[in-house]
Amino acid sequence: MVKRVSFGHAPCPVARALDVIGDWWSLLIIRDAFDGVRRFGEFEASLGIAKGILASRLRDLTEKEVIETAPASDGSAYRDYVLTEKGRGLFLVIVALRQWGEDHLYRPDEPRSSLIDIETNKPVPRLDLRTPAGHPLGWERTRVKKITEA
Amino acid sequence: MVKRVSFGHAPCPVARALDVIGDWWSLLIIRDAFDGVRRFGEFEASLGIAKGILASRLRDLTEKEVIETAPASDGSAYRDYVLTEKGRGLFLVIVALRQWGEDHLYRPDEPRSSLIDIETNKPVPRLDLRTPAGHPLGWERTRVKKITEA
Repeated sequence: MVKRVSFGHAPCPVARALDVIGDWWSLLIIRDAFDGVRRFGEFEASLGIAKGILASRLRDLTEKEVIETAPASDGSAYRDYVLTEKGRGLFLVIVALRQWGEDHLYRPDEPRSSLIDIETNKPVPRLDLRTPAGHPLGWERTRVKKITEA
Repeated sequence: MVKRVSFGHAPCPVARALDVIGDWWSLLIIRDAFDGVRRFGEFEASLGIAKGILASRLRDLTEKEVIETAPASDGSAYRDYVLTEKGRGLFLVIVALRQWGEDHLYRPDEPRSSLIDIETNKPVPRLDLRTPAGHPLGWERTRVKKITEA
């Protein structure tokens, strides 16, 4: 990872979140973990990533308690890499990235993977931000309240 | 930016999205733009980022049509950097990152900024993924359908 400023103590939760997962490989590892990938070799094959980079990202995500190791699900001597509860909390980040990508980065006829509700076999609905009364809450109706404000 | 594999043609929308914005500086620039930052010097001061890196990220985000330049809002000779419609589409990505950060990366007593509904002056509700019938839709009820599936 490129040496950089740490946002680990930032007052902004977005900055602090990016300090943990603000790296394309990390988010793709997390995406694969949601998709059922568990083994080092499976991540390597899925991502086309160099072993050394994969090992350092998995170590980093483990230190940050996003991923943990577990005995292999098939009883072999290997270790599985699985999302912790904190890691599973990133589901909506992955969904938000996916839906933005779907909206803006494909030609209409271009094939793409889709996220399916397994009970209906249909694509999942749009992520939604709504007021308690159920009205859509767009960016223009929000502002960031800094810690310096009363 | 570190030279890396491009995901710009990936069949996975998450990978393709990260190809555009998968860099901590890019997402923090976008966060600041939502927060009303428009000038080069304002981004520089807000992020504590080197001029060269900021210039390259702004150029990159402009090429990818996430940000565009506009005449300065104060009528001066400067240019403003503002989000395009495509860029504003990243609002839910920023909200998802923020809410995950809030959930997992602060001690209970630790000060943090918050995202406020300007009409109620209260924090915005949780992002939500629900079925059309209104049931919560968690990660365990989803799967990714690859383009290789019929």
